[in-house]
Amino acid sequence: MTVENSVGTVKTKYFTFAEPPRELKLESGQSLGPITLAYETYGTLNSQKSNAILIEHALSGDAHAAGFHEGEKDPGWWDSMIGPGKAFDTSKYFVICSNVIGGCKGSTGPSSVNPKTGKPYALEFPLITISDMVHAQSHLIDNLGIDKLLCVVGGSMGGMQTLQWVASYPDRVRSAIPIATALKHSPQQIAFNEVGRQAVMADPEWREGGYYGHGQPERGLAVARMVGHITYMSDQSMEEKFSRRLKEKNYSFTFKTDFEVEGYLKYKGDAFVKRFDANSYLYITKALDYFDLSDGKLIRQGKAVDTRFLVIAFKSDWLYPSYQLQDIVRQLKTKHVDATYCEVKSTYGHDAFLLEVEEETHLVRHFLKKIYKEGE
Amino acid sequence: MTVENSVGTVKTKYFTFAEPPRELKLESGQSLGPITLAYETYGTLNSQKSNAILIEHALSGDAHAAGFHEGEKDPGWWDSMIGPGKAFDTSKYFVICSNVIGGCKGSTGPSSVNPKTGKPYALEFPLITISDMVHAQSHLIDNLGIDKLLCVVGGSMGGMQTLQWVASYPDRVRSAIPIATALKHSPQQIAFNEVGRQAVMADPEWREGGYYGHGQPERGLAVARMVGHITYMSDQSMEEKFSRRLKEKNYSFTFKTDFEVEGYLKYKGDAFVKRFDANSYLYITKALDYFDLSDGKLIRQGKAVDTRFLVIAFKSDWLYPSYQLQDIVRQLKTKHVDATYCEVKSTYGHDAFLLEVEEETHLVRHFLKKIYKEGE
Repeated sequence: MTVENSVGTVKTKYFTFAEPPRELKLESGQSLGPITLAYETYGTLNSQKSNAILIEHALSGDAHAAGFHEGEKDPGWWDSMIGPGKAFDTSKYFVICSNVIGGCKGSTGPSSVNPKTGKPYALEFPLITISDMVHAQSHLIDNLGIDKLLCVVGGSMGGMQTLQWVASYPDRVRSAIPIATALKHSPQQIAFNEVGRQAVMADPEWREGGYYGHGQPERGLAVARMVGHITYMSDQSMEEKFSRRLKEKNYSFTFKTDFEVEGYLKYKGDAFVKRFDANSYLYITKALDYFDLSDGKLIRQGKAVDTRFLVIAFKSDWLYPSYQLQDIVRQLKTKHVDATYCEVKSTYGHDAFLLEVEEETHLVRHFLKKIYKEGE
Repeated sequence: MTVENSVGTVKTKYFTFAEPPRELKLESGQSLGPITLAYETYGTLNSQKSNAILIEHALSGDAHAAGFHEGEKDPGWWDSMIGPGKAFDTSKYFVICSNVIGGCKGSTGPSSVNPKTGKPYALEFPLITISDMVHAQSHLIDNLGIDKLLCVVGGSMGGMQTLQWVASYPDRVRSAIPIATALKHSPQQIAFNEVGRQAVMADPEWREGGYYGHGQPERGLAVARMVGHITYMSDQSMEEKFSRRLKEKNYSFTFKTDFEVEGYLKYKGDAFVKRFDANSYLYITKALDYFDLSDGKLIRQGKAVDTRFLVIAFKSDWLYPSYQLQDIVRQLKTKHVDATYCEVKSTYGHDAFLLEVEEETHLVRHFLKKIYKEGE
């Protein structure tokens, strides 16, 4: 990557709901507030405010999608796709990414201070849904003075938020790109998440969620992340990356790390513990499991929706298999919504949405150009 | 099931290596002994001792493959396949099943008393391999006076033992039926096992393996089993069995069990903790991961092997995908070994080897009949 196609040094900004609604009415019936959203923007909003693209992040993502934070050497999580001349071309578009509520990257979540007690919420934090996340974002978009988004886009949980935007605010979304995602979590997807939650909650260091000030339930959270990582890769990509290679020359005949794949998973688990809050993991996975826009909930009966869809699946993704993306397209077509389906050949599994940059760039660039041109 | 096709009431028997070798030289270089094997037999050994079938069990299985233990209402784990008139017809064949070393169902394992200390071995127990398991079994088969087995058969880890029998004692196996298994564990299979082991070892109740007398590391072992159960089912069978059905009418908006699939996994996890030793889980999964008969190790160079193979795969089994069974057949064919490959249509996933009784019975019965007849 050259400096020319980077958005350069960026800073995370914060937006706190000040004016009504100071509190957000949640899907559960509970209220949450005040709410702060961490977000970043790249590029410039045009005078018609017609070039705004909202990027939605996945489970463990954050607002830092592109560019570099001062003093850090790694760019944002989708930097390969966002910048001047890239798929989300910041010389043309105004790109926004905000951290979800329930998270731990600057937006209000279970590790935030509960104004009523002066202590972190922990399990006092109410359960939130994908719909609540998007509802909160809509206030940020209001605050930025944007009525209609040129595009909402995201992979995995980001794809669910994308779908939810259309379900909640169909008139505010000109186009949508759900990637490697689903209309609803299948029992297998729920099962993997539940195992992760049980691993966290089984750790005595979790302290029924009240571990703040004591340190994270590290071992449980690491196990949860290890399970996750297996589902993000494919059988084939693991074979290509690790095969049965050993860390030492021979089997140890102990329970130490023998295989490279074991070392990799442990490394990923340990790294995750340092950067992610265990309770946020519980809240966000629960939001994923509750998500369900099947049976006509994506496009409401009798509602004419002119949002244009580009739906992207990856062949080796077994966590969000292509049949789930095809289900989205089927529901859209039934409701006469314009949708293009693309299945990208890839061996990367679910991670492909972060890695198949060239193919995605090709698909996204042309799709956006067409949509943007039609609006001029 | 009627009484007519049951082997009836059975008892587990025990065989302790008394005469040399009192100790078993293990693949690691360590020694283990004395060794006891728990086993059961059904049917009658004929005078030529030519009708013996050795059934190999999977990870959490035991010697109790068929019939009923006094006072118990559930039959052995493969009762649907073993009995008069069944696939493994006990009116014709003499069927043997023995618990693996490293296990916790009567054969010597980490929960057995170490004669040197008078206490359970715990982590003093040496790591064992599939080859060691089979080596131990060969002494039992010697003791039963059987020179050549009519058939060795098993699913999953049972399939690995089946392959190992041919690799270790090709002249003692007339036919082999490896089912839903592999020549070697792939990195994905290793990864799932490693997550399970980490879940156990993360539980402080594990006490570095020294929990005997204190109670099992229940929560860690339950999490490990939950991960396992996901891999035993298919996406489709989970959909058919659970879909997104809730335990209550609505979402709880808590971290309690919302979905039936969550309740099922927890039930399975909790039940496992009551019947299986956590250290045995560690030892046996490690044996699975070390298993590797690829690259010509199944049939040694220059060795003419006349064992006849029936290799069975299941279409929806993603834990041991059909390509792994095809790899076995490929290696056999390369070495001019007679092998028939069958891929059974099933939605059950890996569990199919225990559930697709009708199809398996059909395949096995005809295969065995032919082999047995040719030997007469």
